[in-house]
Amino acid sequence: MTPEQKLASLELVLPQPMQTANLPFELIRIDGQHAYLAGHVPLAADGSLARPLGKVGAELSVEEGYTAAKSVALGMLATLQQELGDLDRVAGWLKLFGMVNAAPGFNNLPAVINGASELILEVFGAQCGAHTRSAVGMAELPFGVPVEIEAELKLRK
Amino acid sequence: MTPEQKLASLELVLPQPMQTANLPFELIRIDGQHAYLAGHVPLAADGSLARPLGKVGAELSVEEGYTAAKSVALGMLATLQQELGDLDRVAGWLKLFGMVNAAPGFNNLPAVINGASELILEVFGAQCGAHTRSAVGMAELPFGVPVEIEAELKLRK
Amino acid sequence: MTPEQKLASLELVLPQPMQTANLPFELIRIDGQHAYLAGHVPLAADGSLARPLGKVGAELSVEEGYTAAKSVALGMLATLQQELGDLDRVAGWLKLFGMVNAAPGFNNLPAVINGASELILEVFGAQCGAHTRSAVGMAELPFGVPVEIEAELKLRK
Repeated sequence: MTPEQKLASLELVLPQPMQTANLPFELIRIDGQHAYLAGHVPLAADGSLARPLGKVGAELSVEEGYTAAKSVALGMLATLQQELGDLDRVAGWLKLFGMVNAAPGFNNLPAVINGASELILEVFGAQCGAHTRSAVGMAELPFGVPVEIEAELKLRK
Repeated sequence: MTPEQKLASLELVLPQPMQTANLPFELIRIDGQHAYLAGHVPLAADGSLARPLGKVGAELSVEEGYTAAKSVALGMLATLQQELGDLDRVAGWLKLFGMVNAAPGFNNLPAVINGASELILEVFGAQCGAHTRSAVGMAELPFGVPVEIEAELKLRK
Repeated sequence: MTPEQKLASLELVLPQPMQTANLPFELIRIDGQHAYLAGHVPLAADGSLARPLGKVGAELSVEEGYTAAKSVALGMLATLQQELGDLDRVAGWLKLFGMVNAAPGFNNLPAVINGASELILEVFGAQCGAHTRSAVGMAELPFGVPVEIEAELKLRK
């Protein structure tokens, strides 16, 4: 199964990519076979910021944080699909840097970022989807988003 | 225009590079055509820490944070110029990791890191200067600096 | 001296690598000659989380933070040795991203991360061990660990 077929079998639909028309940075930058994904945030279907906003451990439960991280991963796939045409061009995930907007004292950060890691492994498989990561707690994230994740990937030639 | 000519046309002068003589790390590490810039902080003209220190959203306004991020970018250029001789050896900016020393509740982090992104785009142009980034809020930064930014770049052969 | 001989001369013993059998990420990911190390935490000899847990500047002194960062570096070497067989396959350290679980107001973050930087320089030498880095303060780290560090390295062919 291709990643797109796997997404369909899971009944998952990608959001519109985040709109960055007037922002001074890119969602993705490709250097040869290496792709850098900017810090992505949870997106609604139309590419706007998903709700709820707030800190995990306060406004959001750990389960809502997990769902937010999964939403971040789906938004990354939307960016990749827009840029590459086809998710099958991903040869391997290398790393995630997973950032949780953490309420004071909330440190079950891996349980939140697992929402992204498990989605990637499910869609790309154990070999292509394998990645290193950190799952850490930030003091603040842009506009109060609960999770933000960066990634680096290897592309096929 | 070369980056140096562009800086002159903007009447911008680079600071002395940060002094790291007795520190156990480097400001820049080059691997083939790939350059890693250490976390840079705002610098005064002589390479010492710029003032004011403190958290954006408390001791510093968002405008002062923007200026601090611009100062960080100028210090990165000073490091690059010292190492490469010539800023024209930069083939492309790949990513910034922009960290704001954020006062509790201050989450307009992109408006701060824009000070670095916009300077880089102005000096290197839209193609060479294009970069992905994250703009996130840290609990603390070294010695109370308001902004710290890391970068990765591609160099010409 | 090889890194292993240097470790022996310093009477340093590597811990068991962190156990990640059921976790959805890898401790290391290799892409050609480039290695990515996941965020590593301080380990006891058996690969479990080292004590004390808590924030540097509150539960841990800066000296205890330094020791924790050194423990993180030793755990990274354990991961590298398990994956590569031989630490001499490391051609160069490129970067560390050093994250301190910082108590409010504690900003002597470089003094903590120096525990990792100095160990790496001592074991690998000034040329191979040279690295860029950031040393920054996080709001929370997984399970209350005091320090977490990511790294990128260059491997020999």
